Amino acid sequence: MRNIKLVLEYDGAAYFGFQRQPSQPTIQAALEKALSRLLNHSTRITAASGRTDTGVHAAGQVVNFKTASSMEPDALRRGLNALLPRDIAVREAEDVPAAFHARFQARRKTYEYSIWNDPVRSPLHAARTYYVPFPLKVSKMRAAAKKLQGCHDFRSFCAADPSGKRRENTVRTLSRFEVRKQGSLIRILVEGDGFLYKMVRNLAGTLVEAGAGRLTLGELGGVLKVRDRRRAAKTAPAHALTLLRVDY
Amino acid sequence: MRNIKLVLEYDGAAYFGFQRQPSQPTIQAALEKALSRLLNHSTRITAASGRTDTGVHAAGQVVNFKTASSMEPDALRRGLNALLPRDIAVREAEDVPAAFHARFQARRKTYEYSIWNDPVRSPLHAARTYYVPFPLKVSKMRAAAKKLQGCHDFRSFCAADPSGKRRENTVRTLSRFEVRKQGSLIRILVEGDGFLYKMVRNLAGTLVEAGAGRLTLGELGGVLKVRDRRRAAKTAPAHALTLLRVDY
Repeated sequence: MRNIKLVLEYDGAAYFGFQRQPSQPTIQAALEKALSRLLNHSTRITAASGRTDTGVHAAGQVVNFKTASSMEPDALRRGLNALLPRDIAVREAEDVPAAFHARFQARRKTYEYSIWNDPVRSPLHAARTYYVPFPLKVSKMRAAAKKLQGCHDFRSFCAADPSGKRRENTVRTLSRFEVRKQGSLIRILVEGDGFLYKMVRNLAGTLVEAGAGRLTLGELGGVLKVRDRRRAAKTAPAHALTLLRVDY
Repeated sequence: MRNIKLVLEYDGAAYFGFQRQPSQPTIQAALEKALSRLLNHSTRITAASGRTDTGVHAAGQVVNFKTASSMEPDALRRGLNALLPRDIAVREAEDVPAAFHARFQARRKTYEYSIWNDPVRSPLHAARTYYVPFPLKVSKMRAAAKKLQGCHDFRSFCAADPSGKRRENTVRTLSRFEVRKQGSLIRILVEGDGFLYKMVRNLAGTLVEAGAGRLTLGELGGVLKVRDRRRAAKTAPAHALTLLRVDY
């Protein structure tokens, strides 16, 4: 059996997240359907970030799957792109060692969260940015990001996992947490060894509170320390979040 | 009566162009409906570029209209943005002299045409770029743009006007015609004193032919000279075209 790695790009607007669900369109279901048609056998994929929410996008989600097919990776990529809907594409396909596992071996993930910060909403940016009409101070957002960067227990930034798993280790390391501004567009870049359920959206919501002057650095330190989700800012909306890349 | 100028941004995907049409959604109809609700009188607007096609977007379309209302421009802008659908917004509103006419006084218009040029289509860019899978040489596109820049009779680049007007003056001056490349994204910027019906899309189609090596500079000179639409390249699709700004 071969083990194949795919890098995916998708616009998540029309999907109920990545993971297969009964009777709802998901990225996984669309991809497995295209794979099964192309390879003539049913196929199960494993994703680097399988728990992504409804509406989240990806420029570089990674999956792997097993097949006995002898189809060349390039033919596989082109065949899948012909079969997949317009809002999903395979950017890369390659053979990887049998031991490669898209989720367990992910060393680092990078997400981007985009905010449109202007007194006027932007129709041309509406689909993939969070619209914040009140002014945000980028310097304050950067100070909050700096405080959260590094290794912390991020329990306060983690939604209850719907799978019901308990006592998950909630310590994570954010190796990069940057805020970039180009005109009215604010882009938050966050890179880490792993992210808890809804953690990126909670971090984005926290930076918005900090930027609006409603959360001081001292208060933020308290939120981190208390390890209680109810103390952190509200979760920022999913449609502005993109999984940029996964490194192995 | 006051004369008010508005600068509009919109995502044209859901509209049958700008101009009011019986029983089809258009930008003009949506804006006039919102204006009439806000001002309590029926309102007719005049647009800088009223003939834009189905699916064309704008970052800076300009319109004007007359009203006896005493509402402040800023309140007008905010009121309209509350009433308008999510894919249309008013960026600016201001009082202008009675003689101001959005169409007749437009001195210069700037359009952007976006191309995704990559062996793999991009779901995250699909909505507003023209997907060209075969390689384009930007140097050849730039040479063609340079040849077309300046003052010419652009009859070969003008679709038959559906209004049936004849013997329109088809001489126009392109003051800027640039091709920019960032990774797989190619953006064509064209600025001129006016554009004929479908002219920007025909110019974009021509640069694609030139970039693909299917149209030499000599042939392009011949297309200009012959002043016959049937000789030029095919019209590039509308969904990748954005009216960036109008200067007065």
